[in-house]
Amino acid sequence: MNKTFFIVGGDLRSAALADVLAENNRVFAIGFDRTAAMSERVQMADSIVSFSERADCIVLPLPVSSDGITVNTPFSGKSISLESLTHIIKEDGIVFGGLISPEVREIFEKRDLIVADYAVREEFAVLNAVATAEGAVQVAMEELATTLSGRKILILGAGRIAKVLIGVLSGFHTDITVAARKCSDLAWAQVFGCRSVPISGLEKVIGGYDVIFNTVPAVILDENKLKKISRNCLVIDLASKPGGVDLNTAGMLGVRTIWLLSLPGKVAPVTSGKVIADTIGNILSERSVSHGGN
Amino acid sequence: MNKTFFIVGGDLRSAALADVLAENNRVFAIGFDRTAAMSERVQMADSIVSFSERADCIVLPLPVSSDGITVNTPFSGKSISLESLTHIIKEDGIVFGGLISPEVREIFEKRDLIVADYAVREEFAVLNAVATAEGAVQVAMEELATTLSGRKILILGAGRIAKVLIGVLSGFHTDITVAARKCSDLAWAQVFGCRSVPISGLEKVIGGYDVIFNTVPAVILDENKLKKISRNCLVIDLASKPGGVDLNTAGMLGVRTIWLLSLPGKVAPVTSGKVIADTIGNILSERSVSHGGN
Amino acid sequence: MNKTFFIVGGDLRSAALADVLAENNRVFAIGFDRTAAMSERVQMADSIVSFSERADCIVLPLPVSSDGITVNTPFSGKSISLESLTHIIKEDGIVFGGLISPEVREIFEKRDLIVADYAVREEFAVLNAVATAEGAVQVAMEELATTLSGRKILILGAGRIAKVLIGVLSGFHTDITVAARKCSDLAWAQVFGCRSVPISGLEKVIGGYDVIFNTVPAVILDENKLKKISRNCLVIDLASKPGGVDLNTAGMLGVRTIWLLSLPGKVAPVTSGKVIADTIGNILSERSVSHGGN
Amino acid sequence: MNKTFFIVGGDLRSAALADVLAENNRVFAIGFDRTAAMSERVQMADSIVSFSERADCIVLPLPVSSDGITVNTPFSGKSISLESLTHIIKEDGIVFGGLISPEVREIFEKRDLIVADYAVREEFAVLNAVATAEGAVQVAMEELATTLSGRKILILGAGRIAKVLIGVLSGFHTDITVAARKCSDLAWAQVFGCRSVPISGLEKVIGGYDVIFNTVPAVILDENKLKKISRNCLVIDLASKPGGVDLNTAGMLGVRTIWLLSLPGKVAPVTSGKVIADTIGNILSERSVSHGGN
Repeated sequence: MNKTFFIVGGDLRSAALADVLAENNRVFAIGFDRTAAMSERVQMADSIVSFSERADCIVLPLPVSSDGITVNTPFSGKSISLESLTHIIKEDGIVFGGLISPEVREIFEKRDLIVADYAVREEFAVLNAVATAEGAVQVAMEELATTLSGRKILILGAGRIAKVLIGVLSGFHTDITVAARKCSDLAWAQVFGCRSVPISGLEKVIGGYDVIFNTVPAVILDENKLKKISRNCLVIDLASKPGGVDLNTAGMLGVRTIWLLSLPGKVAPVTSGKVIADTIGNILSERSVSHGGN
Repeated sequence: MNKTFFIVGGDLRSAALADVLAENNRVFAIGFDRTAAMSERVQMADSIVSFSERADCIVLPLPVSSDGITVNTPFSGKSISLESLTHIIKEDGIVFGGLISPEVREIFEKRDLIVADYAVREEFAVLNAVATAEGAVQVAMEELATTLSGRKILILGAGRIAKVLIGVLSGFHTDITVAARKCSDLAWAQVFGCRSVPISGLEKVIGGYDVIFNTVPAVILDENKLKKISRNCLVIDLASKPGGVDLNTAGMLGVRTIWLLSLPGKVAPVTSGKVIADTIGNILSERSVSHGGN
Repeated sequence: MNKTFFIVGGDLRSAALADVLAENNRVFAIGFDRTAAMSERVQMADSIVSFSERADCIVLPLPVSSDGITVNTPFSGKSISLESLTHIIKEDGIVFGGLISPEVREIFEKRDLIVADYAVREEFAVLNAVATAEGAVQVAMEELATTLSGRKILILGAGRIAKVLIGVLSGFHTDITVAARKCSDLAWAQVFGCRSVPISGLEKVIGGYDVIFNTVPAVILDENKLKKISRNCLVIDLASKPGGVDLNTAGMLGVRTIWLLSLPGKVAPVTSGKVIADTIGNILSERSVSHGGN
Repeated sequence: MNKTFFIVGGDLRSAALADVLAENNRVFAIGFDRTAAMSERVQMADSIVSFSERADCIVLPLPVSSDGITVNTPFSGKSISLESLTHIIKEDGIVFGGLISPEVREIFEKRDLIVADYAVREEFAVLNAVATAEGAVQVAMEELATTLSGRKILILGAGRIAKVLIGVLSGFHTDITVAARKCSDLAWAQVFGCRSVPISGLEKVIGGYDVIFNTVPAVILDENKLKKISRNCLVIDLASKPGGVDLNTAGMLGVRTIWLLSLPGKVAPVTSGKVIADTIGNILSERSVSHGGN
């Protein structure tokens, strides 16, 4: 690509993506003064004013900001205002970020800068499903006093994470059932070698599993279903808020439940950073094709 | 379900679906006088007039008709007119068929009968992808003088058939590359353990494969690409018309190409019939929920 | 089987095997006063003298004893002498134990009791390889800042654990190389879809891996090889003593090495106990066939 | 290696192995006048006397001879006597062959030539198991009117071919049971994700399978068992003589049985030839190590 990137703030994922981008680009970073994780290929900057040139692209973290005003910089004691970044980017530059709020977007778009959210791209979600699935399997192995091999597993939902989870589990020789609403999702489950059950028929069978992975962001495991779950069953909830488990009731009933949020950044930050870098590469390459640029 | 089904015409798939439906329903069949494949659970009828009762459901074959007037009855010497079927079905009955043309549909709908096409359902396509993928692998094994194990394989497309094909091949330890246009499709290929290449970059790498499976119904393998394919490469085209290979050019260049159409009915008619029966079951069960029927 | 078993001492594995044996036998246990892990199906005894009947079989833990005189009883404050057990078993009873030392064996054999070591049976080793392989994968996932997916993995050895490890990893889409001495082992690696390299050629390629699992109980990773390993590489040693890594040198060179011993009892005690119970079942059933007993 | 090889007789496997050996050696061939399959890298000879130099290695086919006097030359009308070959090989040359009979061996050894049988090597058997397993799956797919996916499969035996077959089938999502005599073999079956049943318990369950693959060269499927097999079951016998099926009884009972012998040479001759070449390479390299040669 051969562009000038400024990586501003973020955690280990940003350090990893900086390293990947530095293979083919000039990359500067700010907001990493408290970590040694940044690659030597990346030039560290002390402050915004220390940049002697302007960026083609600024890369902000995931999520970009907690307050809508400053960048999330867990690896730095200094605060960096989003507004200040508008002065260090070229006029036709692109601001990349993850889960960009409307207010943050407005800061850049009112200066006619292009804003691109890597976290809403489909390939980003697909590739991150691997880290989520691996993390879920890791936690299951840590929690179980048995091998995964031979366990009866229920997966709620048949979307991206469910499909990848089925794949990751395939070498463990578990007995997987997928519960979903749509006939086509149940068909996919069968095609992947799983048993399938419609959500409507879940209550009748839910007592027979050792591990339940939920991937659906809607409370499927309500009191009626939780009551029927085996006392030895482990429930791992991978869904974003509100999650798929009525946690209060689960707690009262003694159903062992673990809610795992934002796994990719936690269990595989380096891979997660590489996924962001690849997604940014895709965005730039699509723009290059459609705008005839380089 | 416990309904009365008339199975009218069709091939081994219709015989197989009749057998599945007969597990929970009263099933009659017509148009099978020249085969012994029909299960004993199904009552055979000689002619339309010999039915003493009216059907809840009529099941027509896939495809329903070649001339728009009579039912396809490869297992019978007698012709059965579509029009005549309107007299042997209840007023609120349902006519099932596969790939129903507008003219055929009109014959039944003008009598206010419900017409349902099982072949356009998503789960039908998903489940049939298994037979297509297995058939493709079978033909590849028959054609190759090597094992599949160790072969370099290129799959064009990343849809249903491609995904299932990747799964079927997983036990053979081949080296699979998926070529697709969309970033998210390339991401899926990676997630499934394959290499990936954008269609736009295909020409550079296409010389390195032992087997190419095409699943895209658009001529991807044009003269430029065909010229670069190895002389030992086997091309298996699974796409419906127009197919993905410029067959004339492939012939002139001596590229060994096999175009496999409508595999499920050919390589796995019994499974294919069961898929139709299951899809009909899904349609009936959805109608039952939404109409409050039984 | 319907026999009377006394389970004497041991950890969670003994609790789990007691539960499995209690499905078809009368089972008593002693040495578990400090745990609640024992199933309700098992009758707890306070002391040796409290047994009112004699056992068909006594089951000792793995390993049986640390001092050759008393049973290992991590879940009890009371010591149980091996000698005392000779008074609570029938004349034709069988004493089962794991890794029974010659001195311990002598205690029972001099009373003409039959002694059977479940830990030397081939099926015991095969079934335990699953827990070892899963535990190794769990630790690798915990240690890596990347996904396992996409990693370059080297497995040293091609025996039981290596074969099971290849299987467990198959869903993660890693790139596995197996290093072994024998041509037939290298052939097995290929057949399982791995790359293969003779041990003699290891030095040339060893720099290219992200994770190395050793399964060979001989120091393969000596100074010459350790020097060439990547600084980011994780070495997981699964071999029993002396292990496969020169740990001093690895430490000096900063090669991240984890030596995992006796994984089954640690990561999957319940499964491990079930494996012991199944092995005992096999031993009894073979004796029943060869002696015409019940 | 850089040696001079004479390839004498044989089928497509010999043509394929000649091509592989020609990558690093001077290779001549005789006995292929009726085929165009021989690679251009190999120099064809018309007759024994036309060789102007002597060979380091002669490679004979598998099997070497039908009459103990002449080489098997299916691709030639001319007969080549084994005796004559002793005149075209160096004094310290090696004669390679497959399944060499004592009489054939004697012809060469009485001249103090080294004779090496590639077909008795363990890695040869392991690598050929892939072609056998693939061929068995291909035939099953050709014979079944269903997909393999979803079928209940019984594998008799748990040796090389059984293990590879389990792997090849893994992507098809079948339900596999392994029947074996030894506890450790049943353990391996479990570890590979299969159900297991002792041979002694086979009669009770044998009625429940869609496909039975036999790999044991002993008549396991006798009248008692054949009587209980489902009428729709397909039996594929992969065992060498006497095979595992009482074929007469199977015929009388109408059990559909296919006995597949020597699959590798038939379904994957090119791979099979490569396996021979690799095995010869291993033999030479072991001799080189132990004799200090090059």
